Amino acid sequence: MIRIGIIGYGNIGRGVEVNVQENPDMELVAIFTRRDPATLKTMGKCPVYSVNEVENWVGKIDVMFVAGGSATDLPEQTPKYAKLFNVIDTFDTHANIPQHFANVDAAAKESGHTAIISCGWDPGMFSIARLYANAILPNGNDYTFWGKGVSQGHSDAIRRIEGVADAKQYTIPVDAAMEAVRAGENPELSTRQKHTRECFVVLKEGADPAKVEEEIVTMPNYFSDYDTTVHFISQEELDRDHSGIPHGGFVFRTGSTGVDHENKHVIEYSLKLDSNPQFTTSVIMAFARAAYKMNAAGDTGCKTVFDIAPKYLLPVDEDYMRAHLL
Amino acid sequence: MIRIGIIGYGNIGRGVEVNVQENPDMELVAIFTRRDPATLKTMGKCPVYSVNEVENWVGKIDVMFVAGGSATDLPEQTPKYAKLFNVIDTFDTHANIPQHFANVDAAAKESGHTAIISCGWDPGMFSIARLYANAILPNGNDYTFWGKGVSQGHSDAIRRIEGVADAKQYTIPVDAAMEAVRAGENPELSTRQKHTRECFVVLKEGADPAKVEEEIVTMPNYFSDYDTTVHFISQEELDRDHSGIPHGGFVFRTGSTGVDHENKHVIEYSLKLDSNPQFTTSVIMAFARAAYKMNAAGDTGCKTVFDIAPKYLLPVDEDYMRAHLL
Repeated sequence: MIRIGIIGYGNIGRGVEVNVQENPDMELVAIFTRRDPATLKTMGKCPVYSVNEVENWVGKIDVMFVAGGSATDLPEQTPKYAKLFNVIDTFDTHANIPQHFANVDAAAKESGHTAIISCGWDPGMFSIARLYANAILPNGNDYTFWGKGVSQGHSDAIRRIEGVADAKQYTIPVDAAMEAVRAGENPELSTRQKHTRECFVVLKEGADPAKVEEEIVTMPNYFSDYDTTVHFISQEELDRDHSGIPHGGFVFRTGSTGVDHENKHVIEYSLKLDSNPQFTTSVIMAFARAAYKMNAAGDTGCKTVFDIAPKYLLPVDEDYMRAHLL
Repeated sequence: MIRIGIIGYGNIGRGVEVNVQENPDMELVAIFTRRDPATLKTMGKCPVYSVNEVENWVGKIDVMFVAGGSATDLPEQTPKYAKLFNVIDTFDTHANIPQHFANVDAAAKESGHTAIISCGWDPGMFSIARLYANAILPNGNDYTFWGKGVSQGHSDAIRRIEGVADAKQYTIPVDAAMEAVRAGENPELSTRQKHTRECFVVLKEGADPAKVEEEIVTMPNYFSDYDTTVHFISQEELDRDHSGIPHGGFVFRTGSTGVDHENKHVIEYSLKLDSNPQFTTSVIMAFARAAYKMNAAGDTGCKTVFDIAPKYLLPVDEDYMRAHLL
């Protein structure tokens, strides 16, 4: 059994707690929180401890999920806990990945642990899809579309507008753009041509819908470069129809081969997910298994999904994989 | 530069000859043939040698493409040449993969080479798609669809019928079945419900079309389990409209997560290829690079796509990959 621990009890922490039932070679042994453990209401029976007790668990946890935020938590936490455990995180601030990698690598190498960073579906499975496709078709173009799905960041941005009580924002890929890519037309696509944004907004009493809508659609970075639709609905409707956190997306690479590049090829990888955090958790649990196996094989230091041979992800032996999955 | 050799000059051999232009870190240095080298007409300028001279090239070729047939060539050739070179093959007789792996592994380990077997898109990229998806969604179902594309084996089977001058067979996935899978309905699909077969047949003079059609559609293993359509056309039409060798397919895994498995997820990987052999070659060239790099890293023996970390496939360094592809 691979003994799993979680530091931080948010969407990912809850996801691990639920998903462990799908992975019979894993058991969740401890949840660590910065809050008062007595106040933390979990879904299952796993004991909860203060994060200050984590050092007592050295040798009793095989892989620790560091489930904090990328902005401030993970840059500090992942290197720190990589000194004590094999760790895995979902660090997704792209620009800072090289620095985070270096920090975690130093900590993990020195202590003989295996650490996996930036795991999930993007970064993660989408990155893998891009890498394989680029290696196969060196002469080609990459396209990534996201959605249809809820963007937490964009929903939060709407909620911060004066007069808004609650909001949910969906990112939607433009079908015509995807069809052009799929047909091998290699279109040049602007931000506006790739995705639209749809917002469901609950107003506070007395708020001016026209003013709120104007503030949303003109918001720089978040909405001004997109065709954005705003729907005003009641809190009841929002809770009833928009409580899920679906997401997904499409990674394409189109390229050509042949003496005169006369043969076109299209590689497409797509995800359609009812629950973004639960799927993300499903991915990192498979990679947690890899961290455990690679550490057992003496392969220490910081890894990303690019460094991990697919065989490490499954709880079956290699003979079985070759006979049944190849 | 990675120095490439080819043993066997068929579709794959020609594919390597063409594709090497897409891979600036590779050069094709020698083609080996069982025929009289003087009679082999190649497309490029690479010198051709008798396969009997291959031992003279030890130390001068970094990866040898063993491009023979799976039935009789590769079981004998790949272990033999793995004693002399890093090798890669496209062995696709699924039932015999364990035995082939064992033979190649023994030869490669003893001689300190790295050998990759069963590479291409199926087995190969489709196997990788299945493995990742199974690891992520342990509770789920797998579906693979092939086509639309030319099946060489089925075309050959038609050509062997008395009265047939030439033929081309297309395997076509059934849209309704794929849509049901994509919708997460987890359908149970019979062979007939997954694919149809479409045949374009040129008759010899005096042949009876009704008799030929009957022989095709009732042919066990090849056609009797499918809805098969037969079109009789002229040789001129066949040459004009059906000279390509397109192929492709779809790998799905649908699964669920959640306390009561209430959240559905669909993972889809698909290929749409103008030229089956050129795409297959594109895949094995990327993996040839992996064989070279893994051998340089001291990782010897027989490998499949499951054993190969994605990072080995690209001709760029790991810092660049993390900064630009993750």
